[in-house]
Amino acid sequence: MITLGELAESLGLTFNGEPRRELKGLASLDIAGAGDVSFLSDRSFVASLEKTRAAAVVLHPDYASYCPVDYILSDDPYLSYAQLSKFFDTSVLPAPGIDRSANMASDVKIGEGVSIGPNVCIGSGTVVKDRVVIEAGVFLGADVEIGESTRLFPNVVIYHGVRLGSFCRIHANSTIGADGFGFARNPHGWERIAQLGGVLIGDRVDIGANTTVDRGALGDTVLASGVILDDQVHIGHNCEIGENTAIAGCVGIAGSTKIGANCTLAGQVGVVGHISICDDVHITGQGRVLRSISKAGTYSSGTHLSNHRTWVRLGARFDQLEELNRRITALEKTFKNQMNQEVGEV
Amino acid sequence: MITLGELAESLGLTFNGEPRRELKGLASLDIAGAGDVSFLSDRSFVASLEKTRAAAVVLHPDYASYCPVDYILSDDPYLSYAQLSKFFDTSVLPAPGIDRSANMASDVKIGEGVSIGPNVCIGSGTVVKDRVVIEAGVFLGADVEIGESTRLFPNVVIYHGVRLGSFCRIHANSTIGADGFGFARNPHGWERIAQLGGVLIGDRVDIGANTTVDRGALGDTVLASGVILDDQVHIGHNCEIGENTAIAGCVGIAGSTKIGANCTLAGQVGVVGHISICDDVHITGQGRVLRSISKAGTYSSGTHLSNHRTWVRLGARFDQLEELNRRITALEKTFKNQMNQEVGEV
Amino acid sequence: MITLGELAESLGLTFNGEPRRELKGLASLDIAGAGDVSFLSDRSFVASLEKTRAAAVVLHPDYASYCPVDYILSDDPYLSYAQLSKFFDTSVLPAPGIDRSANMASDVKIGEGVSIGPNVCIGSGTVVKDRVVIEAGVFLGADVEIGESTRLFPNVVIYHGVRLGSFCRIHANSTIGADGFGFARNPHGWERIAQLGGVLIGDRVDIGANTTVDRGALGDTVLASGVILDDQVHIGHNCEIGENTAIAGCVGIAGSTKIGANCTLAGQVGVVGHISICDDVHITGQGRVLRSISKAGTYSSGTHLSNHRTWVRLGARFDQLEELNRRITALEKTFKNQMNQEVGEV
Repeated sequence: MITLGELAESLGLTFNGEPRRELKGLASLDIAGAGDVSFLSDRSFVASLEKTRAAAVVLHPDYASYCPVDYILSDDPYLSYAQLSKFFDTSVLPAPGIDRSANMASDVKIGEGVSIGPNVCIGSGTVVKDRVVIEAGVFLGADVEIGESTRLFPNVVIYHGVRLGSFCRIHANSTIGADGFGFARNPHGWERIAQLGGVLIGDRVDIGANTTVDRGALGDTVLASGVILDDQVHIGHNCEIGENTAIAGCVGIAGSTKIGANCTLAGQVGVVGHISICDDVHITGQGRVLRSISKAGTYSSGTHLSNHRTWVRLGARFDQLEELNRRITALEKTFKNQMNQEVGEV
Repeated sequence: MITLGELAESLGLTFNGEPRRELKGLASLDIAGAGDVSFLSDRSFVASLEKTRAAAVVLHPDYASYCPVDYILSDDPYLSYAQLSKFFDTSVLPAPGIDRSANMASDVKIGEGVSIGPNVCIGSGTVVKDRVVIEAGVFLGADVEIGESTRLFPNVVIYHGVRLGSFCRIHANSTIGADGFGFARNPHGWERIAQLGGVLIGDRVDIGANTTVDRGALGDTVLASGVILDDQVHIGHNCEIGENTAIAGCVGIAGSTKIGANCTLAGQVGVVGHISICDDVHITGQGRVLRSISKAGTYSSGTHLSNHRTWVRLGARFDQLEELNRRITALEKTFKNQMNQEVGEV
Repeated sequence: MITLGELAESLGLTFNGEPRRELKGLASLDIAGAGDVSFLSDRSFVASLEKTRAAAVVLHPDYASYCPVDYILSDDPYLSYAQLSKFFDTSVLPAPGIDRSANMASDVKIGEGVSIGPNVCIGSGTVVKDRVVIEAGVFLGADVEIGESTRLFPNVVIYHGVRLGSFCRIHANSTIGADGFGFARNPHGWERIAQLGGVLIGDRVDIGANTTVDRGALGDTVLASGVILDDQVHIGHNCEIGENTAIAGCVGIAGSTKIGANCTLAGQVGVVGHISICDDVHITGQGRVLRSISKAGTYSSGTHLSNHRTWVRLGARFDQLEELNRRITALEKTFKNQMNQEVGEV
């Protein structure tokens, strides 16, 4: 429970209305009822604003006149929503303390206020800094470092030698530091290449569930501070991902690729190995990146969705593109003189 | 062990042959031997039927005359196969009881006939109904509800507040209720948005291994009753998936998208966020869905597989499609009068 | 620590330099310092070779003259690198022994020198051969077989009846033997088909993290010896993957497909079910395989990445391919006589 006045003050924002109004929850404009705060982040919801039953709304000053209830003014209501969302998170952080079923090597160093859940295993030489939360079933190999206030959700596996910064979060069933996919051909099949590098993760890195970040072959795989990864992402060995780059679900990045800062990769994007992508590049969903990109901007590949029957014909025409080109060339050749004349006339 | 007569009776079907014939296993027509029951679900296997050594075959009446052995008649032999397959499942269901290594909050409510395996963790306020099976290493957060006869395979992680219906199955290493991928830009990078919603899953929902269903930002992510998800699927926050919709491996669905009932999404399909797909839509493999679909039917995108050298040329031609169009337009313009005349003659 | 002479001898190679030189690490040519061995596997790094500060370099005889330091001669330096990498792997193999928190059925058979970590669960009838390493939190169902010297990383789940050969490695959070995605339509929705088969995995199979290999419906899903799978791969029920085939990250293969030996599938490739791919087929990244392939070679599908604005136009042109074809045909028809004449003249 927080009052309108307290909430506005905590966000550093001004408000209009009853400062002692109690706010119990956060909901969208359509759903919000008495006691809920809401927000307007997109002008397309102004109609919902006009009908809202929220107790108060966070909005841009431009829309204050449409608001039938108390409001908080923000130049960036979506960011304000992100900030205030944390006040209404009722989920319980695991209490500090080490569960007696945890299995820890004798030389593990544990900071203050750390929570270690049931069945956690921690290998020799590992350092866990202050206020870290390690939930049930997590495995930390030897010589791992976990920075302060980082949280590992249940059943995460961190291999030996991985270093994680502060205020990171890794969701359940993700795997950090498994071997990169490195093999050489030998006369009988594949010879495994020992993956001798590690994974180096900066601060405030957020990693979704069931995501994999492989350890380097030689040298580290690197996620810079502020990187955010969604669920089911795969980062190959020795990749380097720049600050604040955001990678959506099911993206796969092959080994040794470098991605700059402030990039966004939408869902299911695939990036080949050993290339370099500069800062501020945005790839739309399912995009396939086969070459380095040295110019900021938005890039796409693929074709549109069609009715299946139409697509069958389009697919066949695609396969005939060489032939279509030859047919056009033949026409042009036949009528070369006439066309030149036409162009000349223009 | 079951007899032909018992099996036919249990399926509510008629049969031809020796009622006391003992059936010990289930196998395809080519592989089946003495003691095995088999089935014919596709006319292309009639040749296999004629040579089968099965003890009995489930088949449509149209094919009874080709069958050299005892048979059971079914209007839908594939469905009958699904039904009878359960009689031959020799895997052992974990026995009821709570393993002493389980770690449960004091206020957890456990129904009758429940099986809770080793190292399971269950948070405060969680309710586990009758005959639920929770296998080793599963984590249930606080305030979770698990409906009767639902089964969770090893190392599944269910976050706080997730509600699961009856007769569901979630395979190993899947994660239900991790945070949705919600962040707002702040001056320094990304501001996390607390994901305050949950996940609401109906009855008879089947979820494969290593699949992720994220919790809602505000309000729930919803899987209606009868939904089936394969392995490695990702369902973003606040998606709503309609009844009996089937989603194959490696599909990714971005946040806040609504998918109707009785849809099928083939492997690796990607669906953008904030769109709506109506009932009875089918998307073929790797299809990319960027816009809402309001008409039932089958949809596809992408291009065919080619020999790589051919594809290199086709890819280049694709990149020249604007130019090809201009060349055709130039030809048309040059010969406009003649073409009109030609069309006029037709 | 190993000397140059010992290392060359262990690889069966000749060397030039000081045999007692101590080699403490392995690094790339640019990074290597005193005490490091390095390698030259690609002529594009000759400039790095000339400037290297490595203690010794493994290289092809053709490049020995460019090497400023000691060297080991190899006809295949990349393979030599793979072999020597293992000498510098300082990660600690878990010691033999059974952790007292392990939960094992009374009839489990454990070989010699086996390591079983904390919280491991092993079902009835399972056989674990000599020198197997099973790390923390792994679950093995009933009647599983694990061949000698195989290693299972933390939180791997192996369902009942799965058989694994010798010298395999399965990385963390992977799931082997979950139910295949088999359902039949019934009047109310989907009828689950019990998946009665298993998974049969040969020797020296390497499986990455968070990968899924489903059990067969009838008969086994098969990975032949020498198969290597990266992270986040999905192999559907009853697939058969041939010897030494390599499958990169995020690939999905639908059920009952057979892939030959020595194939490579690059990242995010999708293969439809019930087809057959012959030996020595290579599919490039994101390739979509909808039909059987009976000829060895390299295959691709999809389109190139473009600037988004360009792509919007190309996408629209793709959708007009039928119309482009009609326009060309109309031109050809109009000028049929003239074109025939032209061709006649050539």
